[in-house]
Amino acid sequence: MKGPYASPGARRVKPAGKPSKRALQALLDGERFIRPWGFQVESLRNGSCTIRLPFRRTLERPGGIVNGPALMAAADCAMWLAIKAHLGMERDALTSELNTTFLSPAIREAVLCTARILKHGRRRIYGVAECHSRTGKLYSHHTVTYVPIEAA
Amino acid sequence: MKGPYASPGARRVKPAGKPSKRALQALLDGERFIRPWGFQVESLRNGSCTIRLPFRRTLERPGGIVNGPALMAAADCAMWLAIKAHLGMERDALTSELNTTFLSPAIREAVLCTARILKHGRRRIYGVAECHSRTGKLYSHHTVTYVPIEAA
Amino acid sequence: MKGPYASPGARRVKPAGKPSKRALQALLDGERFIRPWGFQVESLRNGSCTIRLPFRRTLERPGGIVNGPALMAAADCAMWLAIKAHLGMERDALTSELNTTFLSPAIREAVLCTARILKHGRRRIYGVAECHSRTGKLYSHHTVTYVPIEAA
Amino acid sequence: MKGPYASPGARRVKPAGKPSKRALQALLDGERFIRPWGFQVESLRNGSCTIRLPFRRTLERPGGIVNGPALMAAADCAMWLAIKAHLGMERDALTSELNTTFLSPAIREAVLCTARILKHGRRRIYGVAECHSRTGKLYSHHTVTYVPIEAA
Repeated sequence: MKGPYASPGARRVKPAGKPSKRALQALLDGERFIRPWGFQVESLRNGSCTIRLPFRRTLERPGGIVNGPALMAAADCAMWLAIKAHLGMERDALTSELNTTFLSPAIREAVLCTARILKHGRRRIYGVAECHSRTGKLYSHHTVTYVPIEAA
Repeated sequence: MKGPYASPGARRVKPAGKPSKRALQALLDGERFIRPWGFQVESLRNGSCTIRLPFRRTLERPGGIVNGPALMAAADCAMWLAIKAHLGMERDALTSELNTTFLSPAIREAVLCTARILKHGRRRIYGVAECHSRTGKLYSHHTVTYVPIEAA
Repeated sequence: MKGPYASPGARRVKPAGKPSKRALQALLDGERFIRPWGFQVESLRNGSCTIRLPFRRTLERPGGIVNGPALMAAADCAMWLAIKAHLGMERDALTSELNTTFLSPAIREAVLCTARILKHGRRRIYGVAECHSRTGKLYSHHTVTYVPIEAA
Repeated sequence: MKGPYASPGARRVKPAGKPSKRALQALLDGERFIRPWGFQVESLRNGSCTIRLPFRRTLERPGGIVNGPALMAAADCAMWLAIKAHLGMERDALTSELNTTFLSPAIREAVLCTARILKHGRRRIYGVAECHSRTGKLYSHHTVTYVPIEAA
């Protein structure tokens, strides 16, 4: 990350292992199966991450409703990023459970998804994710469990 | 099904409202957001439906693992078809809850998903779906709740 | 509730149908199957309710851990009261789904359970419940769906 | 299982570590918090266990409905016994997740609960449990995850 001429005291924007928003966006963009959704990292906070699913005609179910699997993918990705932000880029985790309740349809609009870690254990990372509008209307609610991958 | 004196043009392949495998495949193919997964209807039984997710490089996570959202989409679609087969094409239902547990990774291979209705109520249709290999190895287990849409 | 000689301006502690903490406690105490847990109503807020499960030796699993079914019963009851507080005493609802994740053991101590309604629809009431200590340590996390019973 | 020279009185009903129905019943009866439900072990099969919740007036909700926490406790216990039968008495596991969907009320009647292990991993044991009548009517459906406790 450090450029070739960085002086010894050059600023280290983040402590080692705490990835930036840009690094997380690059992670999403690097996964071929995620790219079609076009998720954008919106914000990062301690143990929490918000991404945005832009509206596209290809996401629509009849009636202009954003399809359910797209919201579940958003929940999965938002939690993944919240965990990467917490663990650091060099460590990873796999989804173990993802429970979804659909509450209201999102109709022809961008959807935000905010994931928040509630418990970070050695064997399990658990949190909630919510798909919502910019004004806070709730579209879906998720609980997500990830299992850390042991360092090789 | 055909009576003994049925005239040549009288074939009724299915009783009204019980869609054929071909009709369900057309339903899947007609939904733009489902098409990228390329699901194929494999078999239909009373209250149960199996679809196939062909393996594609674009489904891979690192390690060749079929991505989780694809399995959740398969569970959602397989249950949708099981319900359409049960209710008839003219009636529809929306996903209300979908709980997923990932059990083993599917690695560079086609995945079958079998959904089965356990309870068909007036206000709720509940069932389980399993993603599995042709030989019965279990990749993920899902419970799915759909809510029938009232006839307009 | 108003006595026979109440003057015109007599205080009406609650608007009709918004039950008091005492009324909700009486509701709990009136249900024979709930009584053994000894739940106490702690606080009520808009769409939210906290109850307390006092520690008793009869709740212990080996190791002094408060047993899991007691936490699930707490989640179910706390959400029920949050809904009664919202709908009014004369209307009722039945549990339809209850998902639980156990996060940390509660060991020989009282447990608080706070339920909060996230979505109140005509056909479904959805919320989360958390069992926690007085200092905020999380023991279990639950999502709960209730279905309103139609007025007869 | 009996060796060739086993004397008549030497029967070893079960291989070491595979507990009998009687041993599992004693386990249930030994847990103070479980005793009030009066669960009876009905049958054991490979990876599966059925218990019975006898009807008692103290289980009733208004309308004679068997209360939901009792069905969740049954699911938790039936899966616990299925796991003990599989792992052997000397090893144990703790409930990590328990998802419940209530499907039909059980009204003033005994309830059977059958749990079945679907996946037995090193870090997680996953299965389904169903509360049902003797004739197969389904009252509730559960998915249950247990985590094995490492040998000390």
